[in-house]
Amino acid sequence: MKLQILDSTLRDGVQGEGISFSVQDKLKIFSALDKFGIDLVEAGNPFSNPKDLEFFKKAGNGTTAKLVAFGSTAHKDVAARDDENLAALLKAGTEYVSVFGKAWDFHVDSILNATLQQNLEMIEDSIAFLRKNGRKVIFDAEHFFDGWKSNPEYAMQVLKTAEKAGACVLCLCDTNGGTFPDDVKKAVKEVKKQTACAVGIHAHNDNGCAAANTIAAYKAGITHIQGTFIGIGERCGNASLATAIANLQLKLGERIVSDKQLSALTDTARYIAEIANIKLATSMPYVGAGAFSHKGGMHADGVAKNPASFEHIPPEKVGNERRYLISEVSGRTAILSAIKRFDSTLDKNSPQTLAITEKLKRLEQQGFQFEAAVASFDMLVLKELGRFKPHFEIDYFKIISSRIENGVAEKATALIKIKVGDSYEITADEGNGPVNAIDKALRKALEVFYPELKAMHLLDYKVRVIGGAGSTAAVTRVIIESTDGDNVWTTVGVSDDIISASVAALSDSLEYMLYISNK
Amino acid sequence: MKLQILDSTLRDGVQGEGISFSVQDKLKIFSALDKFGIDLVEAGNPFSNPKDLEFFKKAGNGTTAKLVAFGSTAHKDVAARDDENLAALLKAGTEYVSVFGKAWDFHVDSILNATLQQNLEMIEDSIAFLRKNGRKVIFDAEHFFDGWKSNPEYAMQVLKTAEKAGACVLCLCDTNGGTFPDDVKKAVKEVKKQTACAVGIHAHNDNGCAAANTIAAYKAGITHIQGTFIGIGERCGNASLATAIANLQLKLGERIVSDKQLSALTDTARYIAEIANIKLATSMPYVGAGAFSHKGGMHADGVAKNPASFEHIPPEKVGNERRYLISEVSGRTAILSAIKRFDSTLDKNSPQTLAITEKLKRLEQQGFQFEAAVASFDMLVLKELGRFKPHFEIDYFKIISSRIENGVAEKATALIKIKVGDSYEITADEGNGPVNAIDKALRKALEVFYPELKAMHLLDYKVRVIGGAGSTAAVTRVIIESTDGDNVWTTVGVSDDIISASVAALSDSLEYMLYISNK
Repeated sequence: MKLQILDSTLRDGVQGEGISFSVQDKLKIFSALDKFGIDLVEAGNPFSNPKDLEFFKKAGNGTTAKLVAFGSTAHKDVAARDDENLAALLKAGTEYVSVFGKAWDFHVDSILNATLQQNLEMIEDSIAFLRKNGRKVIFDAEHFFDGWKSNPEYAMQVLKTAEKAGACVLCLCDTNGGTFPDDVKKAVKEVKKQTACAVGIHAHNDNGCAAANTIAAYKAGITHIQGTFIGIGERCGNASLATAIANLQLKLGERIVSDKQLSALTDTARYIAEIANIKLATSMPYVGAGAFSHKGGMHADGVAKNPASFEHIPPEKVGNERRYLISEVSGRTAILSAIKRFDSTLDKNSPQTLAITEKLKRLEQQGFQFEAAVASFDMLVLKELGRFKPHFEIDYFKIISSRIENGVAEKATALIKIKVGDSYEITADEGNGPVNAIDKALRKALEVFYPELKAMHLLDYKVRVIGGAGSTAAVTRVIIESTDGDNVWTTVGVSDDIISASVAALSDSLEYMLYISNK
Repeated sequence: MKLQILDSTLRDGVQGEGISFSVQDKLKIFSALDKFGIDLVEAGNPFSNPKDLEFFKKAGNGTTAKLVAFGSTAHKDVAARDDENLAALLKAGTEYVSVFGKAWDFHVDSILNATLQQNLEMIEDSIAFLRKNGRKVIFDAEHFFDGWKSNPEYAMQVLKTAEKAGACVLCLCDTNGGTFPDDVKKAVKEVKKQTACAVGIHAHNDNGCAAANTIAAYKAGITHIQGTFIGIGERCGNASLATAIANLQLKLGERIVSDKQLSALTDTARYIAEIANIKLATSMPYVGAGAFSHKGGMHADGVAKNPASFEHIPPEKVGNERRYLISEVSGRTAILSAIKRFDSTLDKNSPQTLAITEKLKRLEQQGFQFEAAVASFDMLVLKELGRFKPHFEIDYFKIISSRIENGVAEKATALIKIKVGDSYEITADEGNGPVNAIDKALRKALEVFYPELKAMHLLDYKVRVIGGAGSTAAVTRVIIESTDGDNVWTTVGVSDDIISASVAALSDSLEYMLYISNK
């Protein structure tokens, strides 16, 4: 039986801290998941959130992906046919619905305040009602593994009841995320023995084992996997489907999506993260920016000889890429390979190589970081090689920020005087805040001499307060990403003054643009 | 045999992207690990990094923690007694050293360019030499699991050679991080059968299974666990010891540290993250800020009835805390419980409850986030309830930032006029950058009226560029954490001008301090 993948980014994902999606966001994510080749997309609870109902109406089904509406079983004192929640589920108009019911006796008793028998009846009545209305029903057995530890007979009875009522999948949920893989395996094997229905897994990461629990359940015979693409979800998150799919397809021989779709794994994960407005962890398996980054000198050397030496899979299979990080702990080999792009005659022991390595260490101690800011590193190399001829100097600038009345900011104003060759240019501009004002004034002055700078614009501006945290006087690192339409580059500036840090990163970026366009 | 825990934050952790420690940082982390009760602290490679040697000289041993120097076996063409690397290892003067050697035939051949026999001799010669010089030797069998898959006899021979030469631990490294728990278990069992030496595990997280692999190895009989406290390390990171220790002690009955030490788990993890200058993932198992946060209405209700319903362990055991998240998807129950602290007569349908919920949604759409900034949320509630009487108003301020000569910033200056009751105060101050200047000027003016504000200082100042990224005019969110010595509170400000956002968060914080101190 083909493995069925259900993504719950739009439902369980939204339970994650700081996550919230507009209807427009949801449509974008649904379309990305569909394109990637996900089978089922659980997209919210039309009863508890009217925004979700709006989404169901707009979305329709995708090319591969089918929408799933999510909700609880009927309320304990209400017949399924009269239950508002189930009525809302039907209103969503989806082929599949998932309903959750309790599989842990403690929950039935203490949270639901129902008898064990009542709970079984609620499950049976609800599923049968949804089946009668033509829906395919995925039954989420909430807290299954805790229930199975506490009262295995009852947990199994819950599943059998759902199966009898017509569920097409019995999904075993580790709702509190505290179960270990060997227990998951044991429980799944037992369930497989006692039921004929398809079985699924829904893992949470509270003990760090969501990825492993998903694999353990798969090896024990489940055929339905739930998770969220990038692992967002309540508390410590859900099992990441990006990790699960890569593990299954690249290491366990499953065929879930095409090779081409798999090679969009990284882009899809980053796209969803962007919409969710979160930064994907650099260290995230398979798709993190650092998942195939080599920093230690020996590892970088090994990978240069043969990538398999320090990479568990080839990064291109998941659309990620290999990077060699430049830092004080990089071997001189890594630094040298970066320097050689400018002067191929240098070797490890050339005075220039040593001088650059030294300078790098000194700047990193001040708070600079060149791992991401490769353009600033290149400028540093050019300066040390005596090959950098500055295109401009800032003579001085002044910025006035002010506020008058009730929090409404007046535009900040900046004036700047720059020197290019023997000419001076003094000008001024205003902006939203001091950084924007000085950014605009500096460009305005420079464009007098270098009209090509008009093609350049910023893609990203990041501020990070570092070191001496604990005060507004802390050291600030600014990272700026820029483009001229064709190339993209990143520069860094550090100072205990956010303005100076921004101006440094900005100047580096402008110099870099002038360097590459006059090369 | 007592389980031995080795933390490699200061060695393998530094291989993580963006991680770099000064000697001072290393001393702080060593002392935190010692206090927490870690047995062994692997603290760097004195051969490849002179900073590490300086650290070894300064650190000495802790109360429980012993330092471990790390390095490779002797070079292939050099006898151990003439090897510079081994000489540096001895110079560190530690009781324990760890040396790594290759256990994967492919690596011996393709990366080391040595014969399989040569590799065994290098391992034997190196360990014997270190033993002769009185060191306890932990042997890190690099790529053991890949080696065991490729050539199990040879991988085992490597271990036996190390054992015979006198290693006290054979540590099985999943260097590329691609192995699954059931394979780890099988391999460890086989090793335990064939050797008498203590066996250890060193897991990486490239397939998301580092935590589970550590547990699988433990269940198969290892007695030595390597990792980094918060999981930092090359590529996707190492197994997190915070996760491993909590899993072992709270779920598997191991006694690794005292209950009191375990209750410092969260603080220790956050302290190390602060020194490493990284943001601990909100979702990190056990220690993340969101590890016990409840957002979904139904889960929040369940936890209010009985915490075990949606928490796999009691958060206080690891020094973390339960939080109910305030956000637009929180049930009104969660928002109401926050409001009730100020007015217990309100219910879900009171106009004030609805007004606050509306206001919350509107502000969140603008970029505010109250999940962390509870003090700002409280101010909002007080305002909506008509119970907020501002202690001051800012009439206006002006800030002048300037730079003269070569990137050296002049101090920024701020002048401010505030109104308290019918009195005005106008003053000025200077600072490192515009935010620091206005911060100092505002406090100076306020302290004329409210000397109690002298007790308040900032703990953290965070800047996040949000939404409309792509320009220096993007919307900025500032989060400020403050304390009066007893209480800690957090406030938020949002604006497209970093100064206005900072002043808003700062004003909220000062108002909050005045509110609680006059309550």
